[in-house]
Amino acid sequence: MSVTFAQGFTAAGVEAGISAVEGKKDLALVVNNGPLDAAAGVFTSNRFCAAPVQWSRKIVADGHVKAVILNSGGANACTGEEGYAQSKATAEKVAELVAAKPEDVAVCSTGLIGELLPLDHVLDGAAKAYEALADTAEAGADASHAIMTTDTKPKTVELTGSNGWKIGGMVKGSGMIAPQLATMLCVITTDAVVSAGQMQAALAVAAEHSFNRIDVDGCMSTNDTVLLLASGASGIEPDKDEFNKLVREACASLSRQIIGDGEGASHDIRITVTGATSEEAALACGRAVAASNLLKCAISGNDPNWGRIVSSLGTVPEDVAPYDSNKVTVDVNGVRICENGGAGRDRSEVDMTPREVHIDIDLNTGSNAEATVWTDDLTHEYVHINADYES
Amino acid sequence: MSVTFAQGFTAAGVEAGISAVEGKKDLALVVNNGPLDAAAGVFTSNRFCAAPVQWSRKIVADGHVKAVILNSGGANACTGEEGYAQSKATAEKVAELVAAKPEDVAVCSTGLIGELLPLDHVLDGAAKAYEALADTAEAGADASHAIMTTDTKPKTVELTGSNGWKIGGMVKGSGMIAPQLATMLCVITTDAVVSAGQMQAALAVAAEHSFNRIDVDGCMSTNDTVLLLASGASGIEPDKDEFNKLVREACASLSRQIIGDGEGASHDIRITVTGATSEEAALACGRAVAASNLLKCAISGNDPNWGRIVSSLGTVPEDVAPYDSNKVTVDVNGVRICENGGAGRDRSEVDMTPREVHIDIDLNTGSNAEATVWTDDLTHEYVHINADYES
Repeated sequence: MSVTFAQGFTAAGVEAGISAVEGKKDLALVVNNGPLDAAAGVFTSNRFCAAPVQWSRKIVADGHVKAVILNSGGANACTGEEGYAQSKATAEKVAELVAAKPEDVAVCSTGLIGELLPLDHVLDGAAKAYEALADTAEAGADASHAIMTTDTKPKTVELTGSNGWKIGGMVKGSGMIAPQLATMLCVITTDAVVSAGQMQAALAVAAEHSFNRIDVDGCMSTNDTVLLLASGASGIEPDKDEFNKLVREACASLSRQIIGDGEGASHDIRITVTGATSEEAALACGRAVAASNLLKCAISGNDPNWGRIVSSLGTVPEDVAPYDSNKVTVDVNGVRICENGGAGRDRSEVDMTPREVHIDIDLNTGSNAEATVWTDDLTHEYVHINADYES
Repeated sequence: MSVTFAQGFTAAGVEAGISAVEGKKDLALVVNNGPLDAAAGVFTSNRFCAAPVQWSRKIVADGHVKAVILNSGGANACTGEEGYAQSKATAEKVAELVAAKPEDVAVCSTGLIGELLPLDHVLDGAAKAYEALADTAEAGADASHAIMTTDTKPKTVELTGSNGWKIGGMVKGSGMIAPQLATMLCVITTDAVVSAGQMQAALAVAAEHSFNRIDVDGCMSTNDTVLLLASGASGIEPDKDEFNKLVREACASLSRQIIGDGEGASHDIRITVTGATSEEAALACGRAVAASNLLKCAISGNDPNWGRIVSSLGTVPEDVAPYDSNKVTVDVNGVRICENGGAGRDRSEVDMTPREVHIDIDLNTGSNAEATVWTDDLTHEYVHINADYES
């Protein structure tokens, strides 16, 4: 279903000859048929941000987006003025097709950094995608396939509000995933009647608690984009709290799916830090643990190596996260293998067979702040994918 | 030769039954026979620092060390009061053997975190090592072997000052190596006549420019220790600048050898950032690039993937390192494959066959500050070593 789950949206995914992979769908188009065209977006904070990010960030600022065109097979990043001209030309082509202004067309690209796109293929593909636009489940599925790169499966979400309004969404992302950013490419649609300001506020909070708390490999992308589009086609004005909640659920589901499809991963790792003096402190601790290659290798070897957890925790400066190292406890999959900063129950008691691994760290500061981050283990397959990725 | 290269030092490396590896030398002893016993040390900043680090940091503070005992096969980290008592008992045993105060005996341990040492084996091993003490090249070599864990080769250095005084040293370290710390275990000896204060100043600067600028896997150890010991046995008071220079050379050589023996590494990567507004800015950029798993995988696949270099550079906040992304150039092994933030010469021109890979990044800010960091590539073998390391 993906982005077509919400009323008022059509989508398509087609093969445009952009990707080097023979027969792969590589161009997606999502059109908001209204009556509203409200939009919100969050983008990578990478200083080498890609041309499509520069374009989309600028045009989303006024809160209006009529259509989004997304391609895999090339990131159009670090491509200078010519790359920016490509993104602009792509928006102009789509604008002509859907009878909108170019400034109401967002552009997203993903793939190799540093090369221009085959623009003819992109423009011809846009026309082909326009012909294929539909509001069906199949059309939504096609779009979610067309944005995949090293992803092994499409990632989508469908949620329904209490009085019938809907949220649909799709995301791609499997490597070059790290906190402090949006994510790779994500489009979320809703048929609710909401303002762009309300959407931006909801999306900012939701992204902070979802996409900004996952980390496949510590590497921030140049192209990360999350867009939220509202058609208003349901005619329903949702309760504001429920709207915020469902946007957050949608982002949480999609970011969780990214972790579930992390490059080469054999375990999805949830790290929850409790008993911290502040959420920021808990988050800093969680991120430090999530960034440990040594821990991620241990988990891939089914070893609940708590020494590698606390040694990562020990790198967080005291002014960032005050805690006493002699009071810290660590549970892995429910077994307290580290107690008071030292050995607890035997690590052989931990069942490491489930795909999902839960690491629960209690800083025991006497305060109750907490945060959760997600990461993947580090496997031979991750090295294989990223040592042999097309150069 | 190692630590026995300088006059006034005896050493030994023996099998004490601490390591799980059958027949492996696992206990080293280094004794300063004077006439001086001046010492300096730098230690890990990890908040979960090991018992031997707690002990040694305290006893080195007064600038006097008579002997150092080092074991592989167990880190004695996160072992609480009992672990600290083990380090203290070890120092007391050595003190008795060499007729010194326990407070003049430093203790270093390396291996698995979270388990106590087999103390009987350590104490019996200390007696065995004491019997084997010698000032020969072989005794120095034995000591450098006894401190190895996942290291595949011993790492030593020998330098001679202009008027005949000497520096010798040994280090171990292959994984859990990251900046902002000392290193794993390192002992440097000199027969120069120098004060503890002069040594501490020289060592602090040398460590900052060597051990603190290497990064195998982004993981900071709980046990890192660098000790510098002076016997004064040459009777020579070296020129202060030459002393500082040779200490820095010794640290640079030993840290470079750690990178050369990084876990599973197939390439040693030198990252030099020039044209920065300050050394701190250059260092922050170099470290961000050195920390990229994606780049490290690409290098292991012999791919000079500059997109992964600039996307890492782009994560450094502007207030930390001001630069214009459109002016950055990147050379890999002498070929300018990124020019003005975009594609330069074709990456196929880069010869990636040498073990050593040189990445030269010019930020072109108009200022001339620069910094160099070293890292390793990320290989299947790294994952294998760390997924299957004894748990």
